[in-house]
Amino acid sequence: MTYPLLEKLYKAMEASNLDSIVVNPGPTLSYLTGLSFHISERPVVIFFTPGKDPAIVLPDLETLKLGHSPFEMQAFPYSETPSEWPKAFEKGIQAHGIKNKSIGVEPRALRILEYRFLEQAAPGATFPDASKALDSLRIIKNSDEIAKMRRAVIIAQDALKACIPLIKIGMSEKELAAELTIQILKNGSSPELPFSPIVASGPNSANQHAVPTDRRLQVGDMLVIDWGAAFDGYFSDLTRTFAVGEVDAEFQKIHKIVQEAAEAGRVAGKPGAPCAAVDIAARTVIEKSGYGVYFNSRTGHGLGIEGHENPYMRGDNLQILEPGMCYTVEPGIYLPGRNGVRIEDDMFVTDNGVESMSDMRREFQVVG
Amino acid sequence: MTYPLLEKLYKAMEASNLDSIVVNPGPTLSYLTGLSFHISERPVVIFFTPGKDPAIVLPDLETLKLGHSPFEMQAFPYSETPSEWPKAFEKGIQAHGIKNKSIGVEPRALRILEYRFLEQAAPGATFPDASKALDSLRIIKNSDEIAKMRRAVIIAQDALKACIPLIKIGMSEKELAAELTIQILKNGSSPELPFSPIVASGPNSANQHAVPTDRRLQVGDMLVIDWGAAFDGYFSDLTRTFAVGEVDAEFQKIHKIVQEAAEAGRVAGKPGAPCAAVDIAARTVIEKSGYGVYFNSRTGHGLGIEGHENPYMRGDNLQILEPGMCYTVEPGIYLPGRNGVRIEDDMFVTDNGVESMSDMRREFQVVG
Repeated sequence: MTYPLLEKLYKAMEASNLDSIVVNPGPTLSYLTGLSFHISERPVVIFFTPGKDPAIVLPDLETLKLGHSPFEMQAFPYSETPSEWPKAFEKGIQAHGIKNKSIGVEPRALRILEYRFLEQAAPGATFPDASKALDSLRIIKNSDEIAKMRRAVIIAQDALKACIPLIKIGMSEKELAAELTIQILKNGSSPELPFSPIVASGPNSANQHAVPTDRRLQVGDMLVIDWGAAFDGYFSDLTRTFAVGEVDAEFQKIHKIVQEAAEAGRVAGKPGAPCAAVDIAARTVIEKSGYGVYFNSRTGHGLGIEGHENPYMRGDNLQILEPGMCYTVEPGIYLPGRNGVRIEDDMFVTDNGVESMSDMRREFQVVG
Repeated sequence: MTYPLLEKLYKAMEASNLDSIVVNPGPTLSYLTGLSFHISERPVVIFFTPGKDPAIVLPDLETLKLGHSPFEMQAFPYSETPSEWPKAFEKGIQAHGIKNKSIGVEPRALRILEYRFLEQAAPGATFPDASKALDSLRIIKNSDEIAKMRRAVIIAQDALKACIPLIKIGMSEKELAAELTIQILKNGSSPELPFSPIVASGPNSANQHAVPTDRRLQVGDMLVIDWGAAFDGYFSDLTRTFAVGEVDAEFQKIHKIVQEAAEAGRVAGKPGAPCAAVDIAARTVIEKSGYGVYFNSRTGHGLGIEGHENPYMRGDNLQILEPGMCYTVEPGIYLPGRNGVRIEDDMFVTDNGVESMSDMRREFQVVG
């Protein structure tokens, strides 16, 4: 009961008027317990309630994992027979005395699968959004966490550097993505990457969330590569955009605008500044250039143990930056049906400013 | 409106008394639409209602993806400002006229995030479990799908074969897992693996869902490797267990029992047999040997576009096997604190029997 992270959690819960919090497998569960559970058809939940040892509902066959827990847990295991699962949820709820209490949930992680068991076991409970309490713990990274993120950045950069000489006209997006994935792993990433690399060429590069296709690189393409690595549970997330052979002058021009917008966004962060300031700084450069309508996303997102987390760099977000917050700056210009450009770096807020963890060359560069 | 898969979906919905179905990013969405959306903090849902073009609620910046849809869709895009998102959900619900209808959901996929927007936009609707209707479409694989799964099996087998000569005493589980991941990709897997390989040695091998650690292989270990590959959206999922140097005679003995149990489970499937028969066949071998208490999981799970899907090989599952169903057979004996053994193959039900897609050597084998 004196595990410092849990004490912090209970304080955050008090500030949010939550009697309990329930988490299922995902980044928050790993963050709070150090345990690895995968999301599956077998529901797993942990209840955190001040004054009680955390209670976990889990399959029998995963109980061995609890030996690695940094604190005592009450375990309510269930067998492979689904009709017995509601009972395990009831026991967990009962052990914490929260049948009629407010049990905070994480809307981004908890599924209907777990939720229906919870509702059934605690029909009088309410299930408010606990994101604020949970995010308040995770959003400030300490120096250990920053060191891991720096390492994830270096792995990612080294991986792409190893790939650049291999990029050839005629290579498919999928082939390049496979090679980059291999290089990310060879350079020391954990096997579960934050996301599968995006390699998007020509018209596909105008799609911000493109998936690599069989399209082959051709002269005149812009080539967006958005990739990241994982180190000890912490992520990097970077983007660079290349020209394949000689490209239309307009694409070189938008590359320069995005480079300037990214620079403006990178330097705009500091303790005390609102997230909006980062978005506005980058967006203003693109709007002044006349391409504002082609930059239809926020400028960045928080980064850490999830690919996207708080804080978000949006023009309407007045959340104040504090030392230890980490986020991406990734403005872009996307010309539908033609080409797109994005440049993305990973920032952290220092005691008196902001620093980019990534430093790979951002200037216009021809490959192929 | 004449897209055959949708016609099948609408029939399955009618049989389940569902007016509509809502899916969010995941295997079912990809299966029904061929589109790739990732689950994120920006909710995406598609409504399928007979007589209407499917309606999608999605971020502005992902609308380019809809060009790849095989059928017409009504799009309700939203901007980066979260306060505007409820409106997009309302419009989608309104377009399908399902504000007071039964809207089926997938409990394993849908999150509280999407669910709360749905409840708000359709306060009079009910949200029953649509798994049965959706699973009925996916559970029978056609010959194209089987061909993709066979390919995923071959990629996985070739990858492990390439790794076996590299396994050395003193190597860590993580190092071996990294090498295996690289080999899976080099052998042609899609970059998003069904799961990150499990490499579990010694006491860790008794944990069925182990995550690779820094533990180094030592003489006397059993070494469980559970790995898979992806090909064009379809998965393989295999396990082999090796002996590191000379091992205790008991471990060689349990390896033989598991090998026999796996064989019994593999031959037990056929059209008309219940899933339970597969589980019972494998389990009986282990129970007769006296190790029944150390096999505390089901014998297998369905496999296809998800790592675990219907049908499940459990002793209480009377679901009848039909040609085209695919599933794993993976009995094991797990001696807590000591060692574990598991052997897993990927089966498909033929017109008059069952066939294993995997054929890699299963006999006791010493490595290191």
